[in-house]
Amino acid sequence: MTDELKMPKLHWEDFQPGAVAIYGPRLVTREEIVAFAAEFDPQPMHLDEVAASATLLGGLAASGWHTCCLLMRIIADGFVLDANSMGAPGVEEARWLRPLRPGTSIRVRATVLDKRASDSRPELGFVKFRYEVLDEQDAVLTVMVSPMMVARREPGAPR
Amino acid sequence: MTDELKMPKLHWEDFQPGAVAIYGPRLVTREEIVAFAAEFDPQPMHLDEVAASATLLGGLAASGWHTCCLLMRIIADGFVLDANSMGAPGVEEARWLRPLRPGTSIRVRATVLDKRASDSRPELGFVKFRYEVLDEQDAVLTVMVSPMMVARREPGAPR
Repeated sequence: MTDELKMPKLHWEDFQPGAVAIYGPRLVTREEIVAFAAEFDPQPMHLDEVAASATLLGGLAASGWHTCCLLMRIIADGFVLDANSMGAPGVEEARWLRPLRPGTSIRVRATVLDKRASDSRPELGFVKFRYEVLDEQDAVLTVMVSPMMVARREPGAPR
Repeated sequence: MTDELKMPKLHWEDFQPGAVAIYGPRLVTREEIVAFAAEFDPQPMHLDEVAASATLLGGLAASGWHTCCLLMRIIADGFVLDANSMGAPGVEEARWLRPLRPGTSIRVRATVLDKRASDSRPELGFVKFRYEVLDEQDAVLTVMVSPMMVARREPGAPR
């Protein structure tokens, strides 16, 4: 492969507030819901249909952490691995609004909320995203807001 | 086992604001850091030492999502599975302050920030926790704040 065929990587300058994109889909199976729960969040509502039916969730559903991790994987394949991502300092909020049931095919809607250059590091900027995990009917299962650090194409250039 | 030997489960009434407890330890291996990243967050800084050394993290470190999931497992074993937990509506914030390196033995410090009865569901209340993931020197690697829904011993009783 020649250099000309390589995709140019996305920089901080390439993200525009208001931009929206949808990534996925990914089918979420009962098997992976239970396997994740057994490893990280072994509460009854994530492990067993009978126990889950007696809980607030009303039936087996993925751990909220599992939903966040699936979101991460979907956006990684969607755009993060094509961007000069330098990681994230954290999460501003995550809301688990509706249960993620086995057999659901999810997508992630990513919206650029805003962006700013770093005051202390001229080589990077922050891009704040709102991510929504959607089911097949576009119902929002989870909302997560997180800033991403992205390398600038022109470090320290005027904003 | 007779009923008398069963541990009584914790209810909403049993959590007191200001209470602090520490759970763990758990040793986090390079193998599990890379396996988690390969599944959910395949960015170079979580997968490969050489690639990671060129990033802001300065070396291989766990995905922030992995740290959150390990936190969840530590508190599940620590107290959540002994409580009448009804799940969590989400996360108010998570901050990944310092990298979690392979070979670190982590603990979780859980602090009860406040509690309130549910206005709409007399059978449960909210207990808001701050969780801090600590390394061997008590440095705080991650902070996470999340409310938990817990069943009340006396549903609808005066607060």
